[in-house]
Amino acid sequence: MSEPTTTSSLSPASRTPLLDRVNSPEDLKKLSRDQLPGLAAELRDEIVRVCSVGGLHLASSLGATDLIVALHYVLNSPRDRILFDVGHQAYAHKMLTGRRSRMPTVKKEGGLSGFTKVSESEHDAITVGHASTSLANALGMALARDAMGQDYKVAAVIGDGSLTGGMALAALNTIGDMGRKMLIILNDNEMSISENVGAINKFMRGLQVQKWFQEGEGAGKKAMQAVSKPLADFMSRAKSSTRHFFDPASVNPFAAMGVRYVGPVDGHNVQELVWLIERLSDLDGPTILHVVTKKGKGLSYAEADPIYWHGPGKFDPATGEFKPSDAYSWSAAFGDAVTELAKQDPRTFVITPAMREGSGLVKYSQVHPHRYLDVGIAEDVAVTTAAGMALQGLRPIVAIYSTFLQRAYDQVLHDVAIENLNVTFAIDRGGIVGADGATHNGVFDLSYLRSIPNVHIGLPKDAAELRGMLKAAQEQPGPFAIRYPRGNTERVPEGTWPELKWGTWERLREGDGVVILAGGKALEYALRASADLPGVGVVNARFVKPLDERMLREVAGKARALITVEDNTVVGGFGSAVLEALSRMGLRTPVRVLGIPDEFQDHATVESVHARAGIDAQAIRTVLAELGVNVPIEV
Amino acid sequence: MSEPTTTSSLSPASRTPLLDRVNSPEDLKKLSRDQLPGLAAELRDEIVRVCSVGGLHLASSLGATDLIVALHYVLNSPRDRILFDVGHQAYAHKMLTGRRSRMPTVKKEGGLSGFTKVSESEHDAITVGHASTSLANALGMALARDAMGQDYKVAAVIGDGSLTGGMALAALNTIGDMGRKMLIILNDNEMSISENVGAINKFMRGLQVQKWFQEGEGAGKKAMQAVSKPLADFMSRAKSSTRHFFDPASVNPFAAMGVRYVGPVDGHNVQELVWLIERLSDLDGPTILHVVTKKGKGLSYAEADPIYWHGPGKFDPATGEFKPSDAYSWSAAFGDAVTELAKQDPRTFVITPAMREGSGLVKYSQVHPHRYLDVGIAEDVAVTTAAGMALQGLRPIVAIYSTFLQRAYDQVLHDVAIENLNVTFAIDRGGIVGADGATHNGVFDLSYLRSIPNVHIGLPKDAAELRGMLKAAQEQPGPFAIRYPRGNTERVPEGTWPELKWGTWERLREGDGVVILAGGKALEYALRASADLPGVGVVNARFVKPLDERMLREVAGKARALITVEDNTVVGGFGSAVLEALSRMGLRTPVRVLGIPDEFQDHATVESVHARAGIDAQAIRTVLAELGVNVPIEV
Repeated sequence: MSEPTTTSSLSPASRTPLLDRVNSPEDLKKLSRDQLPGLAAELRDEIVRVCSVGGLHLASSLGATDLIVALHYVLNSPRDRILFDVGHQAYAHKMLTGRRSRMPTVKKEGGLSGFTKVSESEHDAITVGHASTSLANALGMALARDAMGQDYKVAAVIGDGSLTGGMALAALNTIGDMGRKMLIILNDNEMSISENVGAINKFMRGLQVQKWFQEGEGAGKKAMQAVSKPLADFMSRAKSSTRHFFDPASVNPFAAMGVRYVGPVDGHNVQELVWLIERLSDLDGPTILHVVTKKGKGLSYAEADPIYWHGPGKFDPATGEFKPSDAYSWSAAFGDAVTELAKQDPRTFVITPAMREGSGLVKYSQVHPHRYLDVGIAEDVAVTTAAGMALQGLRPIVAIYSTFLQRAYDQVLHDVAIENLNVTFAIDRGGIVGADGATHNGVFDLSYLRSIPNVHIGLPKDAAELRGMLKAAQEQPGPFAIRYPRGNTERVPEGTWPELKWGTWERLREGDGVVILAGGKALEYALRASADLPGVGVVNARFVKPLDERMLREVAGKARALITVEDNTVVGGFGSAVLEALSRMGLRTPVRVLGIPDEFQDHATVESVHARAGIDAQAIRTVLAELGVNVPIEV
Repeated sequence: MSEPTTTSSLSPASRTPLLDRVNSPEDLKKLSRDQLPGLAAELRDEIVRVCSVGGLHLASSLGATDLIVALHYVLNSPRDRILFDVGHQAYAHKMLTGRRSRMPTVKKEGGLSGFTKVSESEHDAITVGHASTSLANALGMALARDAMGQDYKVAAVIGDGSLTGGMALAALNTIGDMGRKMLIILNDNEMSISENVGAINKFMRGLQVQKWFQEGEGAGKKAMQAVSKPLADFMSRAKSSTRHFFDPASVNPFAAMGVRYVGPVDGHNVQELVWLIERLSDLDGPTILHVVTKKGKGLSYAEADPIYWHGPGKFDPATGEFKPSDAYSWSAAFGDAVTELAKQDPRTFVITPAMREGSGLVKYSQVHPHRYLDVGIAEDVAVTTAAGMALQGLRPIVAIYSTFLQRAYDQVLHDVAIENLNVTFAIDRGGIVGADGATHNGVFDLSYLRSIPNVHIGLPKDAAELRGMLKAAQEQPGPFAIRYPRGNTERVPEGTWPELKWGTWERLREGDGVVILAGGKALEYALRASADLPGVGVVNARFVKPLDERMLREVAGKARALITVEDNTVVGGFGSAVLEALSRMGLRTPVRVLGIPDEFQDHATVESVHARAGIDAQAIRTVLAELGVNVPIEV
């Protein structure tokens, strides 16, 4: 599936003479090993240019480039399967598999995904976006291969942050047990997105300084040779030995679990990586190759601050200059509010699963370090740790993206909701997130949370209402989910704590003909759609659970029709809640349910997806017209 | 909250003279250490008697009794917090905390829970039923204690099976990092419910034979002393040393993660356990005490076959004699069907998360060992491993309980549904499960699965339809969830593979006045309710997704009213699906939605919960009468 070589390859002035010759893994194999470092440098150069438009995953993609070159040089994709955990570090992989010319389209509507995606290329082994899934997928592939009598290779690339996710650890447990041929590359850059946390991270730091090898005797010394040059003698002996040769169970926990361990090695020495992958990918049983890489490799400003450069805004590739955004995000609004709240209420404790920056918690973590916990990429642990705190008298707040809370559905239900514990969920990126696409859209939370008894759900319309909800939640018993979108809102003065009567809606526009019920982002659309339409009512349905049944009964009793609008799937969401309530009340008012259709939404701008889904102002006007409202053609 | 001492304590003939004196942890502390083994024996004796009525968790409760006696002897519950992972091993704990006289009510309506439950006793630190949650809860409690300047102790008891759950491993990662005072008892009985699997299990077996200690030098030797008698000298030195004293990072992965490790020790030597817990619970930072216990301890027949005696039926406590059930469970029906299916279709591969027996897979695992995988208690891994298999051409079937699939919601969505992969979910224990109560009821699956695009859902009415669905799923693209209840069904002959047209409903009773739409268990009730009522239609709504919209339109167009009945929450379930569809169709037929109310349902018989919930035959008849159907008073 390679593209024709571009004509620029003939131009002596090309900045990327090697890369110009490579449009497929086959092309790559025509290069000599000596040329690989140069190719990797060109790939990095190209990645920086592509990413300078902003919003792309820069630092991790730079860090993984040498490794990706080595993997594709040795393995035969798509026959051999190369899995990238999270999939955001794989830009070099995309370029080496015929997608270079489309790189400027990454994360744009109709363009390439920001992650690997099966439907995008036969070289993308998994569709991904969430962390820690690659090992279980790789295990399944290795078992399928063996069950079907096939013999391709399976290699998974997983970061140190992803490896601390429980699912990855549990998968490793079964991988060690099953003993199938498989190569796991532990891409250790000492980062998830925030600074990495946790004991396993400390353990890996221990590995990195090679303390174990240097202090070891016997087999440990042999292992030491494995990471030094010349490697040849060592490897030839290793091949004929048992799985535990490199590091016996007595020195390495990976080995203790039945997984051969080699490392740590320099993840930027592409020729050494080729040499190792050639040999390790041929061995029976599972092998971990621990490579140490630098996020932002080759770009001084990115190496110096890989957290900012994880997914930076627009910048000048030559200098790294960028204009800091002065927009005020919902995340920042939450961070400011909770920092203030914790000063007033000593029961406040904020927990994040590795999303300090994304959730607006940098300031909070500095002001309240003793009431702040980052559990790493382990959403289930975040929620149940909060449960433990609530049982002992705190009022913990779990700050989490909607898409990641999916990973703790059972913990919300089993650990928090059954005992009606006082845990607040501050759910960021609720609704369509846009550029990150199907894996990251937060359009299921209203549905999956609503079905759990005791869980209340609020959709603030602005930063002030967010504060009102946070404050009210501190006094209201039981779990509460406050859900707000990706994007920006208006700043509010410090000390803004509006009173909010629990479970109440708010009439924002009077009107009894057709009434629109909507909360959060959808409410903006409803207000815009109806601004010039007298008779159309708008209700701020800021509680999705409990519904304000008194107001619903009143509104539905008078209106000719209701429209519900939500930035959530139409299946089981807010609209369904209204249908259920009307059915219980025996009211037969017609309801038009607008929301995200029951299919996964690809990456595009938020506005574009909302327009396609039929929930934006224009779509609402169309429905109003269908319901007989006199709608002028021009908005 | 202790009960008054029973008069039997004065009777010289009591079989439990020591236990008769203990109704609270305070009473326990009045016994001498020499009396503790006798007390433990009496507790075990009582547990056997209580469990002989059938359906209780016998083997694990026997195994943990000595440990529980020691914990309550040393710690001061409820001030100190004792957490039991899963909570099904805690019968001795219940008896020692004032609930002895109520033990015959365990799992009965209005009686004690089969697990620990916060609302049942101040001594129950967590409400639980699912595995692997105790460590995150304990971490939250320790953090809350320190944040609030308090000083109670936190001790978690976790089995070796539960520890291999990813959530427990990930929690341990943060526990090691945070370094808070906490005692973790690893209750290692070499079992989860099935035989234990996985590499961590092998690692623990390695610990058990003390290989590491015996082979170690230096610090390893010191560790060896820790598990030998006399312990005194060792412990006195340990107190003044660093956290890593017992086992330096170079020999023990727990220690490498920053958690002090002591063990393995005999989990049935109650006096030695008291001695250790006294000292270890006083140390700063987290400590793991690894105790080795025997499931079924003290009961020869249970020790010999702890898998059967995990939760046996009714038996004679003296002899262990029991009458094997000749009922044919839905689990057995699934197991038989899939064993046959795999003979015809080499793409079949069955995955279970530690539920071989419960899911009816014993025969399958013997007939098709190479297409069978037990991943341990790791539901997320089970689902994503299936995704990897499906990507490579297999047609995997994940056999899982409804309540446990909650733990893999994101994996169903992110790893399976986005790429519309061919994974079948055989969901056992769908609906109310009865005696296991709120933590185990499978009444959310229709709601949470329905909201995920691409996932189809079927509710077979009997074993033949289950087979039809399994067979049809092998040819239908995309994920399919087949959901059946706890309980029994009718045997069908081998070779029964009825044709099933995808997405179709089936009219079982003609009638156009009021029509009942129901699938699975609820359909039985619908048929029974309407048996003598001409004019009442009944539709086997065997597909919850996709709905049979053609039939729905036809039925709703003629009927005066519809009744939907489901063994699932009324929030976002099948009834909501019907409401949503009618709203889309613009049909205003009144619908009465019957299902499980939006609150957690405590343990009781299935029939009793269904009656209370208002979905059984009598409840349906009441609704029919309300809708104007002429219903004779006597059914």
